[in-house]
Amino acid sequence: MSKQTRNFPLDALVSLAKQRGFIYQGSEIYGGIAGMFDYGPLGTLLKRNIVDAWVNYFVHGREDMFLIDSAILMNKKVWEAAGHVEEFVDPLVDDLKTNKRYRADHLLEDKGIDPSKMTIDQMTQAFVDNKILSPEGNPVGPVRKFNMMLETKVGAMEDSSAISYLRPETAQGIFVNYKNIVDSFAPKLPFGIAQIGKAFRNEITPRDFIFRLRELEQMEIEYFINPNADWLAIFNTLFEEQKKFLESVGVKADSVHAYEHPDEARSHYSKKTLDWEFDYPFGTKELTGIAYRTNYDLTKHAEFSKTKLTYFDLETNEHIVPHVIEPTFGLDRLVLALLVDAYEEQDLGEGNTRTVLHLQKNMAPYLCAVSPLLKNNPEMVEKAQAVYKTLKVATKGRTIWEDNSNIGKRYRRQDEIGTPYCIVVDHQTLEDNTVTVRDRDTMAQERVAIDELKNYIA
Amino acid sequence: MSKQTRNFPLDALVSLAKQRGFIYQGSEIYGGIAGMFDYGPLGTLLKRNIVDAWVNYFVHGREDMFLIDSAILMNKKVWEAAGHVEEFVDPLVDDLKTNKRYRADHLLEDKGIDPSKMTIDQMTQAFVDNKILSPEGNPVGPVRKFNMMLETKVGAMEDSSAISYLRPETAQGIFVNYKNIVDSFAPKLPFGIAQIGKAFRNEITPRDFIFRLRELEQMEIEYFINPNADWLAIFNTLFEEQKKFLESVGVKADSVHAYEHPDEARSHYSKKTLDWEFDYPFGTKELTGIAYRTNYDLTKHAEFSKTKLTYFDLETNEHIVPHVIEPTFGLDRLVLALLVDAYEEQDLGEGNTRTVLHLQKNMAPYLCAVSPLLKNNPEMVEKAQAVYKTLKVATKGRTIWEDNSNIGKRYRRQDEIGTPYCIVVDHQTLEDNTVTVRDRDTMAQERVAIDELKNYIA
Repeated sequence: MSKQTRNFPLDALVSLAKQRGFIYQGSEIYGGIAGMFDYGPLGTLLKRNIVDAWVNYFVHGREDMFLIDSAILMNKKVWEAAGHVEEFVDPLVDDLKTNKRYRADHLLEDKGIDPSKMTIDQMTQAFVDNKILSPEGNPVGPVRKFNMMLETKVGAMEDSSAISYLRPETAQGIFVNYKNIVDSFAPKLPFGIAQIGKAFRNEITPRDFIFRLRELEQMEIEYFINPNADWLAIFNTLFEEQKKFLESVGVKADSVHAYEHPDEARSHYSKKTLDWEFDYPFGTKELTGIAYRTNYDLTKHAEFSKTKLTYFDLETNEHIVPHVIEPTFGLDRLVLALLVDAYEEQDLGEGNTRTVLHLQKNMAPYLCAVSPLLKNNPEMVEKAQAVYKTLKVATKGRTIWEDNSNIGKRYRRQDEIGTPYCIVVDHQTLEDNTVTVRDRDTMAQERVAIDELKNYIA
Repeated sequence: MSKQTRNFPLDALVSLAKQRGFIYQGSEIYGGIAGMFDYGPLGTLLKRNIVDAWVNYFVHGREDMFLIDSAILMNKKVWEAAGHVEEFVDPLVDDLKTNKRYRADHLLEDKGIDPSKMTIDQMTQAFVDNKILSPEGNPVGPVRKFNMMLETKVGAMEDSSAISYLRPETAQGIFVNYKNIVDSFAPKLPFGIAQIGKAFRNEITPRDFIFRLRELEQMEIEYFINPNADWLAIFNTLFEEQKKFLESVGVKADSVHAYEHPDEARSHYSKKTLDWEFDYPFGTKELTGIAYRTNYDLTKHAEFSKTKLTYFDLETNEHIVPHVIEPTFGLDRLVLALLVDAYEEQDLGEGNTRTVLHLQKNMAPYLCAVSPLLKNNPEMVEKAQAVYKTLKVATKGRTIWEDNSNIGKRYRRQDEIGTPYCIVVDHQTLEDNTVTVRDRDTMAQERVAIDELKNYIA
């Protein structure tokens, strides 16, 4: 189904990510836990760079945005009101021999059948008509709805009042705080509320590395507009802003493609949904999305909570319920996209190759690595340490010390973690206070005075 | 029980936090959910400032620290190995009439009885001997252990294999990644692994605002040392570092006090535990902690996962199991501590008062507010907008536009959210390009040239 989009397999990237400390399988020493990954030191730094860039772009870079951080666990009525208890479901079939469960729509797609317009009963019929078995070759039961919310019980009482769900989206944490923001800040329409945080989905078949996770991180905005405003114009502008942001962190313009969800495939709350799809090694799939949620959520929450969630429009003297446009980013998918676009296995000729991550300078975990050419030359080491300490402060921690094995291997290792500059203190440094600066992408080397280094790498 | 530590009640702070958009009750429109709070825009900015300061201090400011970000949900064997399935419990009694549950140790303490050295059976006996009833005046059942981990089920299989827990501490996410860090980075002992993230505890009685939460955020370090190292010296140094960090973000030196846990009150894994306690309005209680966990966790995980979790010491040619010292910060408690130490209700004389948050400059949500003296003077507004936009970029978003009501009220509002500088564009500005800069703490006003503003507030 998936077209070949990259000249390297996902596994190559997964292996590099693990070996170099970007991303590890969750609970790995215990055989893992499906759908969970842990970010190692380099992945964590990369993720922090993305988050900071997003906050700068969508919150600090605008004057109409409020950043909040709501609890993952909410009163269960939130999910009843928002429709998730009923509707946040995937179609599932059970393997009748092994009792394993599979996504019914995926099994149909694998047989070339398009399930997007089918009801649950029609899917069941399609399994029967086409004699489709489970991936293990066994018969399957009827298709049924599987709720993807993870349930838990909160509080000391052991009854149904204690039920809560791990939020499957950060969005509802925003809607239940809409009134708080209006009361505290009296913002003018349009305004947005933004949030970064974890969400949990009990995916039947998590797959494709950090693409389809059970524990994921979202960067969401609910943008509240006047019901009479030109929603489509605002929608399109925010959609373009999403792409501009992607490019600002280094996603290549020609790796992303606009995709509009057909009517029958949209979520229950949405009137229009567009995605920016990305060319992953396993196919072209969603990277970010934007949905026009109308006044669905605020209306439902007003009804279920018996709280007035209107907005008083000073110009028309009316109480209105704002409509909402929701641009969403999956943080893990964006990490993956940056790694995919940055990854290259380069043929250096004469049988030599190197793997390099061409991460944009503002995204790379480290901006520079500092190395003494000879590890056993105390004068060189001392000088290199001084350079390292100065740059570590100047780059706000984005400088790494590198003195393992020989200089060639050091360059390869820094290439693999995407460090734009390798700075080497050598014999000449001790004479004239210049260092070698080696560029990750071109491999060109240049001599730079130590005093000029800060400006050079800035 | 609690001594009077502050001249204002906690409620005054809770009310300010809600009104001004620092912290809201979780799921408030649905009547809340006990033990959960949502951070509003100002609380979120404050929290980001704290997190960044912590990363700069403990990760970027050192050369021996790795920052990771592991999944909240882990393989359940992690918690069996670490002892939490058995030992992460609180003593509980049931009110036999209402079925409500209470912390047994808290009820005993309220009667002046010290339960810290008692077994579960001895606590039950103490209830009987002292005829202690529930807070509602009803008899209670025997004391029993209540596990505080929140349980959920992950995966499509509906059996016990699916059980998982929301982590009650970020620490175990570090221990299960110990081998990954050693394999990827080959660090020399001693080194630390740091993590910031959510943890969940089903507290029987969450209370005291964001002090005792069911969903909380931790900033933890596991510091791995050679078993032969002078652990007490390292322990003490890190303990002092904790205090230095607290002071660097504005916690007052005389608000914190060292407290050593007695033998019988320590967690099951710890050989020595110290806290920095803080003078909250509701008493002097834990703000941060540090524990010597020996090799307890690595040994248990090696045993349960059948994975070698040793470290090869190049100097002695030995395979050793590192020992661990764990300095921990509760992020929410630190937010609370900063707000408490910053809060002042000031008597200005002649019946005038103001409430002011003396947050340190690097912690305040906004560094400056920019205001046109007259909202209806287009020239003033235009000039003020230019100043605002310049400063917004210069302060990386930490500048707010303020033009509501009159200048006196604007100052009061900015005092309440802790903005150090209010910058006002007035008639004189239009003549000489100077503005009024009003200091939050002294209320002194000074004229500063617009060109000098960046330097002035830096």
